[in-house]
Amino acid sequence: MNAFGRIFRVNIFGESHGESVGINIDGIPAGLALSVDDFLTDIERRKGGTQKGTTPRQETDLPILKSGVFNGKTTGAPLTILFENNNIRSGDYAKQRDVPRPGHADFVANKKYGNNEDYRGGGHFSGRLTVALVAAGVIAKRLLLTSSKGGGIKIHSTILEIGGETDLEKGLQKAVDNKDSVGGIVECKVNGLPIGLGEPFFDSVESLISHAVFAIPAVRGIEFGTGFQSAKMFGVEHNDAIKDASGATFTNHAGGVVGGITNSNEMVFRIAIKPTSSTPKEQHTYNWETNTIDTFSVKGRHDLCIALRVPVVLEAVTAMVLVDLMLLEQMIPRVINN
Amino acid sequence: MNAFGRIFRVNIFGESHGESVGINIDGIPAGLALSVDDFLTDIERRKGGTQKGTTPRQETDLPILKSGVFNGKTTGAPLTILFENNNIRSGDYAKQRDVPRPGHADFVANKKYGNNEDYRGGGHFSGRLTVALVAAGVIAKRLLLTSSKGGGIKIHSTILEIGGETDLEKGLQKAVDNKDSVGGIVECKVNGLPIGLGEPFFDSVESLISHAVFAIPAVRGIEFGTGFQSAKMFGVEHNDAIKDASGATFTNHAGGVVGGITNSNEMVFRIAIKPTSSTPKEQHTYNWETNTIDTFSVKGRHDLCIALRVPVVLEAVTAMVLVDLMLLEQMIPRVINN
Amino acid sequence: MNAFGRIFRVNIFGESHGESVGINIDGIPAGLALSVDDFLTDIERRKGGTQKGTTPRQETDLPILKSGVFNGKTTGAPLTILFENNNIRSGDYAKQRDVPRPGHADFVANKKYGNNEDYRGGGHFSGRLTVALVAAGVIAKRLLLTSSKGGGIKIHSTILEIGGETDLEKGLQKAVDNKDSVGGIVECKVNGLPIGLGEPFFDSVESLISHAVFAIPAVRGIEFGTGFQSAKMFGVEHNDAIKDASGATFTNHAGGVVGGITNSNEMVFRIAIKPTSSTPKEQHTYNWETNTIDTFSVKGRHDLCIALRVPVVLEAVTAMVLVDLMLLEQMIPRVINN
Amino acid sequence: MNAFGRIFRVNIFGESHGESVGINIDGIPAGLALSVDDFLTDIERRKGGTQKGTTPRQETDLPILKSGVFNGKTTGAPLTILFENNNIRSGDYAKQRDVPRPGHADFVANKKYGNNEDYRGGGHFSGRLTVALVAAGVIAKRLLLTSSKGGGIKIHSTILEIGGETDLEKGLQKAVDNKDSVGGIVECKVNGLPIGLGEPFFDSVESLISHAVFAIPAVRGIEFGTGFQSAKMFGVEHNDAIKDASGATFTNHAGGVVGGITNSNEMVFRIAIKPTSSTPKEQHTYNWETNTIDTFSVKGRHDLCIALRVPVVLEAVTAMVLVDLMLLEQMIPRVINN
Repeated sequence: MNAFGRIFRVNIFGESHGESVGINIDGIPAGLALSVDDFLTDIERRKGGTQKGTTPRQETDLPILKSGVFNGKTTGAPLTILFENNNIRSGDYAKQRDVPRPGHADFVANKKYGNNEDYRGGGHFSGRLTVALVAAGVIAKRLLLTSSKGGGIKIHSTILEIGGETDLEKGLQKAVDNKDSVGGIVECKVNGLPIGLGEPFFDSVESLISHAVFAIPAVRGIEFGTGFQSAKMFGVEHNDAIKDASGATFTNHAGGVVGGITNSNEMVFRIAIKPTSSTPKEQHTYNWETNTIDTFSVKGRHDLCIALRVPVVLEAVTAMVLVDLMLLEQMIPRVINN
Repeated sequence: MNAFGRIFRVNIFGESHGESVGINIDGIPAGLALSVDDFLTDIERRKGGTQKGTTPRQETDLPILKSGVFNGKTTGAPLTILFENNNIRSGDYAKQRDVPRPGHADFVANKKYGNNEDYRGGGHFSGRLTVALVAAGVIAKRLLLTSSKGGGIKIHSTILEIGGETDLEKGLQKAVDNKDSVGGIVECKVNGLPIGLGEPFFDSVESLISHAVFAIPAVRGIEFGTGFQSAKMFGVEHNDAIKDASGATFTNHAGGVVGGITNSNEMVFRIAIKPTSSTPKEQHTYNWETNTIDTFSVKGRHDLCIALRVPVVLEAVTAMVLVDLMLLEQMIPRVINN
Repeated sequence: MNAFGRIFRVNIFGESHGESVGINIDGIPAGLALSVDDFLTDIERRKGGTQKGTTPRQETDLPILKSGVFNGKTTGAPLTILFENNNIRSGDYAKQRDVPRPGHADFVANKKYGNNEDYRGGGHFSGRLTVALVAAGVIAKRLLLTSSKGGGIKIHSTILEIGGETDLEKGLQKAVDNKDSVGGIVECKVNGLPIGLGEPFFDSVESLISHAVFAIPAVRGIEFGTGFQSAKMFGVEHNDAIKDASGATFTNHAGGVVGGITNSNEMVFRIAIKPTSSTPKEQHTYNWETNTIDTFSVKGRHDLCIALRVPVVLEAVTAMVLVDLMLLEQMIPRVINN
Repeated sequence: MNAFGRIFRVNIFGESHGESVGINIDGIPAGLALSVDDFLTDIERRKGGTQKGTTPRQETDLPILKSGVFNGKTTGAPLTILFENNNIRSGDYAKQRDVPRPGHADFVANKKYGNNEDYRGGGHFSGRLTVALVAAGVIAKRLLLTSSKGGGIKIHSTILEIGGETDLEKGLQKAVDNKDSVGGIVECKVNGLPIGLGEPFFDSVESLISHAVFAIPAVRGIEFGTGFQSAKMFGVEHNDAIKDASGATFTNHAGGVVGGITNSNEMVFRIAIKPTSSTPKEQHTYNWETNTIDTFSVKGRHDLCIALRVPVVLEAVTAMVLVDLMLLEQMIPRVINN
C-alpha cells in the first residue's frame, strides 16, 4: 500500500505528470515548530547538485502545507504536504506510450492496472514522488533531534561509489563517455541512537529500514554493517565484543543492530542503486502497436546517475522508521515543548 | 511487532527454552487439505542435514494443530500451530546469565525489557522460532501451488556459498579447522509468478520480502537480481529488454521485479548470513557480575554454520509474502476447492 | 488514527478554518470512471437542504482531484481529494478561545495537544471534515453498484425522528421555538448485499460499521435490527427463521447480520444524533482567562439540527466499510471494466 | 480479522468443540507480575453464577500460559494463553448439521467458508471464545491499575435489565415460564480515566470500544452517556457545562467522551444483548437435507440468558481498548516496575 509506519504514518500520492505529488502524515507529535523554509535545504539536496549527472528538469518544489500546522507549529492533526507539478512536458512521454521502457514499471503497471495507469513519465511509479518522502524526512529528522530520551540523533548519508568508482567525477564521466547511465553505492550512518529500537519478531530495525528503502526507486540491495562480507568471516572475527556496562563494543561489524535491535553503536548500512533506466543510448523493447521489437533512445530530461539524488531520500526514510520506533518506545513524546 | 502480513497474517510466539514455540495464522483460505504429515519434510530440511555443521539438539518437532482445521481441511478460522519444547537443557544457559554473548541479542534484550527478558538460549530471539516460520511456510507454499490464476508457483532456495567457498564441504571444514563458525550466501528463486504482484509505493515486492527476510536471525544483507553488482553496470547493460507481448525479456538482471512489481520472470534474490554467533572458540565479553572483561567459549549445542538451516526458512517467508499479495490481487481465492 | 479500512483505505485531513479539508484514498480499483460532477449530488445533500435547521455557511465545496485519476478513470494509484476552505470567518471563533464550548472537543483537544490545537471552529474535530467522507462515499457507492458478484448494492439513509418527533418539521420548530438545538434518529438500509461479508472475530459487520459511524461527530448510539428492543424479546420471537436454501428468513429482526456476517437480508441500523452543541441559547462554561464560570451564546453560523446533514455521511461510511469487505472477499475486482 | 489493537494487540483463535480456544497477545509491557491465579476470579465471573440462567456446561477453564512469561513476570514477548476444551459432547451438534439454527452463524458460516466451517457448537463463532477475551482482559485491567500517569483506572460492568425487568430474578423467571430465552441490558462504567484518550478522526473512544464490543456475540446495540435519549434532548440540556480548570462538568450526559476523546469524567455506556438464540422452545428452520421447513428445539446445554455472562467480557474488551490507547499516549510504560 501507499502507507508506511505504525504511529508516525505516511501516505504518499501523486504522479510525475499529474497535478501534484504529496504526502499525508499522521501521528506527528503536536508542538513541533515548522515552516516552509525548513524544507528547502533537503529539497535542494535531492536535486543532486548541478553536476552533469542530474536532470535539467527544475521544479520549483515549494512544499505547500495544507493541514496540520497552526501558528507555526504542528497541531497533532495530520499534516498534508503538496508539491504542485508545474514544469511538465507530457508530450515527451505520450509518444512513447506504445513502447514500454525497459527497466521502468511501464509494462507491469499497464498489466496490473488493466490499461488504466497514468503512463506519463512513470506516473505514480516515478522518482518524482521522492520529493514527498524528503518532505516527510525533514519532519522526522527534526523529531529525532528534539527527542527527549534519545537526544540528538543524527543521520548522514553519502555516496560511496558511482559507476564502480570511488572517485565520483570519474564514475560520472564513464556515463558521459558511453552516452549511457551509471549506478552507485550509497551509505547511511546514524549516530546517537538509544539501545532498544526494533521489535521482534518481524519489526527488526533491518526489516523496517529495508522495507522503506526498497520503496525508493532503483534500489537493488541493502546490507547492514559488514553485510555480504559477513558471509566470509569467522564467528569470533565478526562478533563485536562488548567492553563495558554501556554495551559499547570494540568493533562495529554488526552496524549497530544486534538481534534486530539497536545497540547504541553507530548504525551503518549501504544500498545499491542501479543505473538510471532511461539513458540516451539506443535500447530495444517491444512495441505494442507494431508488434515488433523496436529501438528507441530517451530524448527527454533524465539523470545519468540517479544515485546522486538518493542520499537525502535515504536519510528521509531512515528517519521515518526511527521516529516511528521511538514513538512506540516512548522516547519521543506525543507533545513537543520547544 | 510479532505479526506480519495483511490478509495472510502470521503471529509468532514462544521462547527457545520456554514451554513451546508456535505461530497463529489468520486469513488462510478455507478448504485447504492439511495434515501433520504435510509439515514433516520441511521441518526435517530445517535441521540442516546430518552434516558436521548443524547442532546435535534434536527436537521431535511435531507440529500440533490447535485450531482452524476440521475434517482434514482448513476452516477459514485462524490456525494455531504449537511446537512443544521437549529437549531443553537450560542449565547450559543459566550460568551464562552474567555474560551477554557477543553477536546475540542478550545485551539489548536485557536493556529493552528492563531485565525481564527470558534469557535462556536467546529466549524469544532464538533461531528456534524459525520452526514456526517453516510451518507457516508449508501452508503458504501449498497455497501457491493451488493458486487459481498464478498456478504452480514454485519456490526453491539453495546455498551458494559457505565460509566464502562454493564447495560447501570445504567451507564447513574451515570452521572445523578453526574451531569457529562460518557464514554463507543463500539464494532463492521463484518460478511461475504472475505479472503484477507488489503494491506501490511502500509495498514493493522487494520491500515486503526484505522485511520478512530480516526477521530471520543472522541475515545481514539482501540483493535482488544483479543486486550490488548493478551499481557497477551501465543502464543499457542492466536493463532487461522486453521481447514480446507477454513481457518476457532477453535477460533477467532485475531478478523478476521491475518498479517493485513482478514481471513474470523468475524472481531471484540472495541473502548474506553471518557466521553463527555462538562458536566453540574463546571470545571476550563484558561480565555484569564481576564488572570485568570476561572470556568464555560455548560448550552447548550450536551450529557451526547457521546458513545450512536457512534455505527452507527463506522459502517460508517468501511464500508468506507472495500468498499475501496474491490474496490481495484475488489470484488465490478465499475458499479452495481441491 | 486518521485512517480507516484495510484495502480501501481512507486518510482524512484538514481543519474547519485551515486552508482545506481533504481525503486520501488508497486501494481504489483501477478503471472506475470518475469526474467532479459525480460528487455534486451527495455534496449538496450534505448541506441538509434549505430548511431552517441548517447553517447558512455556504462553501462552494467543489472537490479537487489531485491524484489518482487519469483520462477520466481511476488509475489504481491513491486518489487525493481536496476541498478548499473559502468562506471562513475566523474572527467568530478567535474571541471564544478562552471559553471552551460545552459539548465540543475544545477543552479535551487543548489538553491532548498541549495547547497546540487549531481551535478555530473545532479545527480538525469539526463536522466540516464530513464533506471529505461524503466524497469518499461517492466513490465507494459507485463501486458497490458496479460490483461483479454482489451486483447492485444500494444504500439509503433517512431521518426517522427530529427532536423526538417523527414529523420532522414539528421537531425543528421545537428548536426554533426554544432558541435551542435538537437531535435526531437516522436510519440506514442496505439492499442487495451478498451472504458472507464480515470477518470473525473482531471484524464483524457491526464492529466495522460502528467503528466508522462513531467517527461522525455527534453520534451517541447505534443499534442493528431490533437493536435495544431485542433485549426485551424472547429468543424464539427474535430469531429469524430460515425459510429456504437461499437463506431468506421470515422476519428480519437481526437487521441482515447474523454472527457478525451478512445473511443477504436487508441490512438495517439506526444511529442517535445528539442536539448540536452550538446553540443560540445562553450556556455556561469555564473561562480560562478570567478563571470564572462564564456565559455565552453562539452568534456564528450553526445548525439547529445536525442530524439533517447526517444521512449522506452515514451512507458514505457504510459504503466504505462494505467496499473494503467486498475487496477482501474478492467480490469487487481490483480492476473495473466499465 | 481475528486481531484487534494497535500496540496491545490480541489474536483470538479456537473453536467451541475443537481442541482448544486461546489468545495471543502482543505488545504487553515487560515486567508485569502474572500467574494463573490472577485469571481465576474473572473466569469464574464469566460463568454467570449458578443461577438458573446459565448453562450447565462446566469447563475447568484453567488458562495455560504457553509463552511470554518468565519467572512470574511478562517478558515483553507475545503471551499465548490456551484453554483446552475438555468437556465436549459433539454428538449433540452433529445431528443438527442439516438444520442451520436461526440466530446463529450456522448458515452464513457455511456459505462464507464453502462448507468447510467447523459447525460443532458454532465453531469459531461460539461464545466459548469469550473466555479468551476474559483472559486478555485480566491482563489489560492489571495494566490499567498500574498505569503510571492515569493511575488507578477501574472498570465495572453490571446488568441493568433482564428480559425487560430491572428485577433480574423476575426477568429470568419469564424465560423459565416461557421455556424460552431472554435478553438484557449491560452497563459499563470506567473511573479514573485521564483526559485525552482517543484519536481523531476514526479512532474515537466510542469507535474503538464499539468495534470491540460488537465482537462479543449477541450484542445488538451500544450507546454512550445519554445515548439514544440524547436524540430527544435540547442542546443546552444535553451539553455538560465545564465548571473548572480540571475540565470537570456539572453533568455527565456525554458519558465521559467529548469529540471522541475522554474528558476525565466517568465513562458510561450500555449495550443491548439479544435473547440466547438457542432456546428449549420449538423453532422452525430450513433443513438442507430434506429441503423442507423443519422444527427443532435445543436439548443441549445452553444459557437462558447470555447477558448474565457478559459483564466480565465487556470489562475485558473495554480494558483492551483503553490499554492500547494509553500505550499510544505513553501513559502506560513499555516496562513496568512493580
